[in-house]
Amino acid sequence: MTDPDRSAHQQAGAADAVLTLPGTILTTPGPGRAYGGPGGPGGCTLGLDIGGTFVKSALVAADGTVRHESRCPTRSADGPDAVLRAVLDHAAETLAVARDAGEDVRAVGIASCGLVDEDAGTVVFSASIQWRDLPLRRLAAERLGLPVALGHDVRSGGLAEARLGAGRGHRVVLFVPVGTGVGGALLLDGKPFPGSHWRSAEVGHVVTRPDGDACPCGQRGCLDTIAGGVAVARRYNQRCGTLSPVSGAEEVARRAAAGDPAAVQVWEEAADAMAQTLLAAVTLFDPAVLVLGGGLSQAGEQLRAPLRRGLEQRAAFQALPEIVFARLGERAGRIGAGLLAWDLLHAREGVRT
Amino acid sequence: MTDPDRSAHQQAGAADAVLTLPGTILTTPGPGRAYGGPGGPGGCTLGLDIGGTFVKSALVAADGTVRHESRCPTRSADGPDAVLRAVLDHAAETLAVARDAGEDVRAVGIASCGLVDEDAGTVVFSASIQWRDLPLRRLAAERLGLPVALGHDVRSGGLAEARLGAGRGHRVVLFVPVGTGVGGALLLDGKPFPGSHWRSAEVGHVVTRPDGDACPCGQRGCLDTIAGGVAVARRYNQRCGTLSPVSGAEEVARRAAAGDPAAVQVWEEAADAMAQTLLAAVTLFDPAVLVLGGGLSQAGEQLRAPLRRGLEQRAAFQALPEIVFARLGERAGRIGAGLLAWDLLHAREGVRT
Repeated sequence: MTDPDRSAHQQAGAADAVLTLPGTILTTPGPGRAYGGPGGPGGCTLGLDIGGTFVKSALVAADGTVRHESRCPTRSADGPDAVLRAVLDHAAETLAVARDAGEDVRAVGIASCGLVDEDAGTVVFSASIQWRDLPLRRLAAERLGLPVALGHDVRSGGLAEARLGAGRGHRVVLFVPVGTGVGGALLLDGKPFPGSHWRSAEVGHVVTRPDGDACPCGQRGCLDTIAGGVAVARRYNQRCGTLSPVSGAEEVARRAAAGDPAAVQVWEEAADAMAQTLLAAVTLFDPAVLVLGGGLSQAGEQLRAPLRRGLEQRAAFQALPEIVFARLGERAGRIGAGLLAWDLLHAREGVRT
Repeated sequence: MTDPDRSAHQQAGAADAVLTLPGTILTTPGPGRAYGGPGGPGGCTLGLDIGGTFVKSALVAADGTVRHESRCPTRSADGPDAVLRAVLDHAAETLAVARDAGEDVRAVGIASCGLVDEDAGTVVFSASIQWRDLPLRRLAAERLGLPVALGHDVRSGGLAEARLGAGRGHRVVLFVPVGTGVGGALLLDGKPFPGSHWRSAEVGHVVTRPDGDACPCGQRGCLDTIAGGVAVARRYNQRCGTLSPVSGAEEVARRAAAGDPAAVQVWEEAADAMAQTLLAAVTLFDPAVLVLGGGLSQAGEQLRAPLRRGLEQRAAFQALPEIVFARLGERAGRIGAGLLAWDLLHAREGVRT
């Protein structure tokens, strides 16, 4: 618990309070160039992270400093139109508050869950919100009267970690958030890599046990079915019957740390499946750094040590990446959205560099 | 055998003759920009492809046209210094011949086997040539008096296919040459993606059967041990004893086509392992197109049909790439090397676009 990565992670994971990232400089794609610092552009962008439960927002300065954060319920249960209204109302209210406080908000970045086509500015599909082919970038620009960039939540979180957090300084960053499921994003030269159909880096849906459990995605034996938080809790409860079930994977981690043999076994199987799948990802992506994020990364060395051991035992010619913990916690998505808005300004309006 | 992809492939695979690629335009990274065509720069570059057996060279014009090709033995058996001399002597002689013929050779591109650090301009290691940390870019520039770009043979071949061949027009191209082994290269926006340690896209060394055969790379059950040409021939001979052994995988393909049950089984296992591994690659890279190259791609639909079927049977949310055959055959490496030299000129000297 004295690991500095873990401390940073835990701080970032604390309840919503204004967060100032000490000494962070927002660099443009590629090393060595900065928007911020002395002589950098003034003002800020508004970054929004749309999840299934909350819409979270942050004002992000050019040097990466976060000056204001807030959130509102997503209202997924009220249907896709209600969610759209909630998102745009929240953004408009946040802009008004920011302007009253003297902030010069210059652009908006939105990170959405689901399948996001960044080029077209549309949410192709979101299962949790029931959006389909929603031209969110255009709708937000019309309502808010500002330039809008649209991105994907996991790729935006990875972008923030790659430029400001645990992946800073590296050209090839693999971001793997382990929460209820296992996500993934590849960041190249500080830019998200979406793939050809906005489905890249789906680490959680690489098949790890071809004869394994059915996955909601339609395959069998995805990494998600062994190492995602939902799967870890389910697998433990399956083994231990109904005597003392856990409500989540965090409890499995705690029981494993306390020596519960079934918890140890389920946790080790999860870490082993992670190692197997991540070695395949390393063999293909060859990343410099692997950034572990999401709720289960709070387990710290309990996750990292067996994962590293599993990679080292399996690897041959591969150069293993450094394994680090995400530093921006659940703020990464909205901060990354703010960075996407800065990138848009840089590309379209030529902000000073 | 009436497949146009296959015909193009077979033409390109013919013995060394001057090849003109009809209508090819060498585009700079990213779609829509061209070096060549009316008003494009004149002259050509010299592309060299250093393999374990031959050094092959081509003069590559700005529009991608190949004007002259030649080759010499690599002389690997004579040791690493002899190979270096053979490569540089061949390049110098080819330059002299080209200049005598009135060619304006403006830069040199070298594609080497082994681990190649493109940024540093060094061959980090090559097992077949026994080079270690060889500053080949600097040595070639000193000897030849021209700007020199250094690349990797498979990535250079993929580059040529992505810009001029079967992957043309696509932003994310996965090139998989299937020869004695299974190689791989990822091309993004018409540029090779080397990874952080020059080991990216090692499709042949993704573990496909964790309990499978030992691979020379040090792992067990790599795709290479099931679907590479050497493995396909070995697996057939293991099953059929010594009565009528094959000398290579092409013969297994022929016997499978003729109905030999053991050959059918070995071939289907190879295609199935390919499908399993390539689906993992699709899940991570999300390519628009999968370009099959190498000697075994000569099997055409006998390879592509079961591979496509295996991908379709397994895939769920993934968007499957188009599967096409390489068009430049074994010329791809030297043509790609010539393109690297053009890219160098473009970056350093600003050739007209």
